Amino acid sequence: MNRAADPEDVPGLPPEFGFIRRNFLPLAGAAALGLSDDAAVFSPPPGREIVAAADAMVAGVHFLPDDPPETVGAKLLRVNLSDLAAMGAVPLGYLLTLSVPPDLEPGWFEAFAAGLAADQRRFELSLLGGDTTATTGGPLVLSLSILGTVPPRQALRRNGARAGDGIWVSGTIGDGALGLDVLQGRAQDPTGWLAERYRRPSPRTGLGWRLLGVASAAMDVSDGLLQDLGHLCRASGVSALVDADGVPASPAAAAFGDASLERRLTGGDDYELLFAVPPEREGELASAAAEAGVPVTRIGRFEAGPPTVTARHSDGTLLRPARLGWSHF
Amino acid sequence: MNRAADPEDVPGLPPEFGFIRRNFLPLAGAAALGLSDDAAVFSPPPGREIVAAADAMVAGVHFLPDDPPETVGAKLLRVNLSDLAAMGAVPLGYLLTLSVPPDLEPGWFEAFAAGLAADQRRFELSLLGGDTTATTGGPLVLSLSILGTVPPRQALRRNGARAGDGIWVSGTIGDGALGLDVLQGRAQDPTGWLAERYRRPSPRTGLGWRLLGVASAAMDVSDGLLQDLGHLCRASGVSALVDADGVPASPAAAAFGDASLERRLTGGDDYELLFAVPPEREGELASAAAEAGVPVTRIGRFEAGPPTVTARHSDGTLLRPARLGWSHF
Repeated sequence: MNRAADPEDVPGLPPEFGFIRRNFLPLAGAAALGLSDDAAVFSPPPGREIVAAADAMVAGVHFLPDDPPETVGAKLLRVNLSDLAAMGAVPLGYLLTLSVPPDLEPGWFEAFAAGLAADQRRFELSLLGGDTTATTGGPLVLSLSILGTVPPRQALRRNGARAGDGIWVSGTIGDGALGLDVLQGRAQDPTGWLAERYRRPSPRTGLGWRLLGVASAAMDVSDGLLQDLGHLCRASGVSALVDADGVPASPAAAAFGDASLERRLTGGDDYELLFAVPPEREGELASAAAEAGVPVTRIGRFEAGPPTVTARHSDGTLLRPARLGWSHF
Repeated sequence: MNRAADPEDVPGLPPEFGFIRRNFLPLAGAAALGLSDDAAVFSPPPGREIVAAADAMVAGVHFLPDDPPETVGAKLLRVNLSDLAAMGAVPLGYLLTLSVPPDLEPGWFEAFAAGLAADQRRFELSLLGGDTTATTGGPLVLSLSILGTVPPRQALRRNGARAGDGIWVSGTIGDGALGLDVLQGRAQDPTGWLAERYRRPSPRTGLGWRLLGVASAAMDVSDGLLQDLGHLCRASGVSALVDADGVPASPAAAAFGDASLERRLTGGDDYELLFAVPPEREGELASAAAEAGVPVTRIGRFEAGPPTVTARHSDGTLLRPARLGWSHF
């Protein structure tokens, strides 16, 4: 990183100390011990289990190099919060590692940290610790590990869906993928909604824990609805029949019409919850969704049979996408 | 990554699934839920606190691109284990994120995972989860977050050293820095010891928890002994007087003679423990070190005064290094 002298630089200390103190110390909770020890220490809430996940984001792959740094910070935290939500967990704290190429402009991390700060308050968690390293080049690489908690033996898994359960999603599907298309100039969205959804998804942490005892299985949609649904089917040993035209679209996505349907169902970057609910629990689900303030939609049904995903139009014809979702390699 | 079809590839699944299943599923403990859910879930040991730390390693910065992948895996885990040891914690598990450039050779991660597997057994922890992402180029970036536990309110901190406490280190100091010199052709070591110490440091997890109630402060030495000692002095509000010639050297390092002393005391990559022990607890320390099978050496004394580090030769002259340690930026 090309950097000028930092006002927080301390004589006799390497420059990363000023950088960390200025940008990241304000994010640190009590467990972080002022970011000045070798690790964070905290007492887990008694009687709850720990839930732990990690996601990395690479510039040019998971976010655009010219995305506002505030939204990059928010997205990094939110994709991890989405994993907690999918398990029915509530957030506790996170660890952050930054691998910074030499050409990143000074000030980038100030805005990045501001994005984290706003979301820490919103989602009620704090920074536990981490590591800042310089790279010799290549893209900026950000990695975040998140910790949360659930009541014992109640975490939502992918393997509990049963034939007859409804297939449900939170929010709207396809905004993230269409938002990427907009940001890369392949589509237009005068509302700005889709780009915002790509850059700053809405992890459903308020809904996730309310699905404990209601949903029989859950995961988050990150790599394309149909592909992710396939994972849930394989874990649960069921097949899935999706009403393709019933998959909820935001108004901005709906404006693209039917031409965008395949993109919406396979594009990824949704960070919505995908879950199974037995018919007899649909009343409880309605209450949970209302309390959380998150819309939920039934998009199909799990059936007995090999773990395949069938997406059908309202007229009975099948949707046959060229690919089901995003591949990381 | 240029990759051939993987024998674990599953038709209809993106290729990263075969990659993860083949290389990383064997590392996963019960808490990882088969690496097939959105997060790991585990019950923390009752009555203990959680200790959490994260370190990233970048090819060409923290390891050499031609280091054997087994040792890169081992080093990544060990530098994090060293943070747990410094807090007096015992290991529990870890999360791993990989950001992989396209030109990494197939098979690299097989050996990397083998290095992790051997060390998981040795240090008694397991993989909880993580994320694999492709980058558009640049160096391989690895990030590991580690979790451990300590008895409540007993974690070793950096802020407890008092004037009169002895300054102690585990093992030998300077091997890592000299090992890097050897691997980069700036020095010779026919024994191979120094390169091995650079590539595969020895985190003192067996000693760390035995220092609970014995050491008044502790940290690990990663960025240079004198610089890291300065951090401990600032946290504790004491000064340090170091007997420079008494800092323990391995036989391989000692073969370089006095010319290497400054390099040894400022070079970094030691991953030894640096800790404070009141004189009345030196007997307990001797027992703890003997039980752990780790040699410990008193290298000086904390004194009242501003947080400065003075390193003095046996003849009373001062060591005045050009820099105290490694800077990450």
